[in-house]
Amino acid sequence: MAARSESELAFLSIEQAARLVRRREISPVELVEASLARIERWNPRLHAFLTVIAEQARSHAKRAEREIRRSGTRGPLHGIPVSLKDNFWTRGVRTTAGSKILADFVPERDSDVAAALARAGAILLGKTNMHEFAYGITGENPHYGSSRNPWAVERISGGSSGGSAVAVATGMGFASLGTDTGGSIRVPAALCGIVGLKPTYGLVSTEGVVPLAVSFDHVGPLARSVTDACIVLEAIADKYPRGATRPSYRALRKSRPRRFRLGWPKDFFFERVNPEIRSATEAAGEKFESLGARIEEVKLPNLADSVDCATNMVVAEASYFHESQGYYPSRSEDYGDDVRGHLEWGHNLRAVDYLAGIDARRRVQADFDAALGKVDAILAPTSPILAPAIGESQVHVPGERETTVRSELLRMTRPSNITGLPSISIPCGFTQHGVPIGMQLIGQRWGEARLLAIALAYEEATGWHNRHPALS
Amino acid sequence: MAARSESELAFLSIEQAARLVRRREISPVELVEASLARIERWNPRLHAFLTVIAEQARSHAKRAEREIRRSGTRGPLHGIPVSLKDNFWTRGVRTTAGSKILADFVPERDSDVAAALARAGAILLGKTNMHEFAYGITGENPHYGSSRNPWAVERISGGSSGGSAVAVATGMGFASLGTDTGGSIRVPAALCGIVGLKPTYGLVSTEGVVPLAVSFDHVGPLARSVTDACIVLEAIADKYPRGATRPSYRALRKSRPRRFRLGWPKDFFFERVNPEIRSATEAAGEKFESLGARIEEVKLPNLADSVDCATNMVVAEASYFHESQGYYPSRSEDYGDDVRGHLEWGHNLRAVDYLAGIDARRRVQADFDAALGKVDAILAPTSPILAPAIGESQVHVPGERETTVRSELLRMTRPSNITGLPSISIPCGFTQHGVPIGMQLIGQRWGEARLLAIALAYEEATGWHNRHPALS
Repeated sequence: MAARSESELAFLSIEQAARLVRRREISPVELVEASLARIERWNPRLHAFLTVIAEQARSHAKRAEREIRRSGTRGPLHGIPVSLKDNFWTRGVRTTAGSKILADFVPERDSDVAAALARAGAILLGKTNMHEFAYGITGENPHYGSSRNPWAVERISGGSSGGSAVAVATGMGFASLGTDTGGSIRVPAALCGIVGLKPTYGLVSTEGVVPLAVSFDHVGPLARSVTDACIVLEAIADKYPRGATRPSYRALRKSRPRRFRLGWPKDFFFERVNPEIRSATEAAGEKFESLGARIEEVKLPNLADSVDCATNMVVAEASYFHESQGYYPSRSEDYGDDVRGHLEWGHNLRAVDYLAGIDARRRVQADFDAALGKVDAILAPTSPILAPAIGESQVHVPGERETTVRSELLRMTRPSNITGLPSISIPCGFTQHGVPIGMQLIGQRWGEARLLAIALAYEEATGWHNRHPALS
Repeated sequence: MAARSESELAFLSIEQAARLVRRREISPVELVEASLARIERWNPRLHAFLTVIAEQARSHAKRAEREIRRSGTRGPLHGIPVSLKDNFWTRGVRTTAGSKILADFVPERDSDVAAALARAGAILLGKTNMHEFAYGITGENPHYGSSRNPWAVERISGGSSGGSAVAVATGMGFASLGTDTGGSIRVPAALCGIVGLKPTYGLVSTEGVVPLAVSFDHVGPLARSVTDACIVLEAIADKYPRGATRPSYRALRKSRPRRFRLGWPKDFFFERVNPEIRSATEAAGEKFESLGARIEEVKLPNLADSVDCATNMVVAEASYFHESQGYYPSRSEDYGDDVRGHLEWGHNLRAVDYLAGIDARRRVQADFDAALGKVDAILAPTSPILAPAIGESQVHVPGERETTVRSELLRMTRPSNITGLPSISIPCGFTQHGVPIGMQLIGQRWGEARLLAIALAYEEATGWHNRHPALS
């Protein structure tokens, strides 16, 4: 068999890599070396990783090689190099959460999901860059440098799981875990041309994750394909209620949704969406129809009036965490300006506004429950704007005055954090300038299996996920 | 059979009355007339009822009489006169919640529990007096006059379900429903010498009840005996989880707990309890031992530091309700001074303090979960002080400086609103001046059946519940 190039190795799917590892045609050591070589070459420019644990990764790869030689693989993640966003506690490995405040924090134990990945045999390459304390959607970071979009390095990667998205998109590892409180997995996935899944609230443990806002925080995978995302999800999902269908990548490979219904959300304000993103989403709708979907308009009448109000809950919960830890306000000057501003907002928020947020959240949930009573999933762009340049804070939206990059990037993903419904972002095209476009599918509660099957049908029919950024 | 006096009729137990009604030895009409006669005679002085619906009650009693003659009784509440605290919506009957703001509010539908009592055949006499918007523990009311303790009319009845307690204690109906957000069923029950049960949070519907603080509000019965409380609970409890034992008065009559364990809560600060109340509680412990109980000390180490913090949640939720209804601050001047003060506190409370309250609540819950892992119920006084005189706002507590009547009256009942655990107050003696003393038993979550059986064993062994106030 011909030797594989570093890039061929690095861009294998997890499924392909796992098969080769299982057959002992490649070793975890080769996979780790290919990933580390890419990190060494590109990370200084892209700022995907904050901490690389090359020696530990090499040692674990050798151990995995021995174990697999002796007793076969534990499963599809055995020997596969991955990364973790830097807000997941990792025993003995610095966990900064992208902050100056935790710059020297070395946890004494693993987060639940870090432990779950280790049990599955995945090999940790390092900890990825992120928006400070996950409190931002651009991935810009004043303390460690901003992660950069590999398709256009002057643009943002998106955030807060920006480093994870950049790492996966560029073959610095096969998958990563991120957190998503308003869009922080899906937005960088969309902006970097990969798959990002925010599962149903409560499905994946957040134990040992530096929180942003506890009733909105979700842990989920960033990967290069729907199947890869499913493989990672299977390893970390642990809290399905009785009766729900657990996603399984073996079941996924066999499932082909025949007839399904997709909702087109009338109240997602498509008139404000960038025209190229809007076209790509409409084309995806047509592609879905050719795959057997019936598309129907769904109404979310409370969305527009309720999202901002529900967002009060996020800022309050974030401030409560930082205050109860003694970080804020005593270390105010150690925060970036944006995060400090958010914390000040939350600090001053009144309890009655938090409680109004709870009511607003109920209204949003009622909207989505009604819509998803009629359709299998809701289809929408992940972000209404393309990745802006690093440093840009304002954006011009069609039919609107200038508005903030932050509010636009969060606009379409935030509702699923309010509802807790699963949502996956998958690539659905490129602009004429070669910038990736993502779309999201929002599924029924605990309906990850069905959601992934629908996403996979589209992915297989289009193949957008096979394009990788050309780095030079 | 000799004709029964008004007072004999009015002080029958529900069980006795139901048996006589079933055998057609007495008619619901007689029961209603006896209750109405007492209301007419004593209510002007005791202020137990805000609204009496004598004509409706008479007409319903006649209908019940006909139905029972034709087809027998529906159950033990059929034809039994009862009352409802004035914060339960009653279709076509004014529901003031003890406030000036709702002085003319006539609901178009019944609260769930009003409907449940009507289905059981109970006959509504009227709506009872209460602390304004249930936001106080004394039962003093600046708009309608304060309900008065029938054992000593210059003293408070306790609140907020004060009118319900007075009505039941004086034979103006056989039972009443109250609400309890910090002690509002149990404290007036204790001060008026009757039984009051706050069930497990969520067991009884609060739909159609004017809320005080939604995550602390409970609906439950006030009655003259444990069995009567059980009969009423059975009619209104509708949300038991699978596996829990539903309380049933038939089962209760047969159950006699042989060996059981009671916890003596070290951290309830008995040194601050009124000596006569303390003695009565200790005597109750000895009585329980003679009935087969083992008494052991239980620790609640987080209680002292956490209760006030958790209480922030109450004031915030109360203010949110009043603000979202547009009552506060726009109608500030229509509130009593005390309630206005609480609403202002909640209005200004910060969201981070509300969230700290959620954490504090978890700590209190953990304390009780640990303690109730070892014992069947926790035994304590219901109130650490005797009923103060109307108008008194300060009280001298042994070993302490002066403190507020409000904080002392709430001190021992509030923890069960924070935890949501069931708690029953039952009579356990009288002071040398003839003022009743109540004790509470706090049970395991969804453990009403066991809790009632333990309370009944004590009640039958002592008979304190058979004393009634001598009105003149």
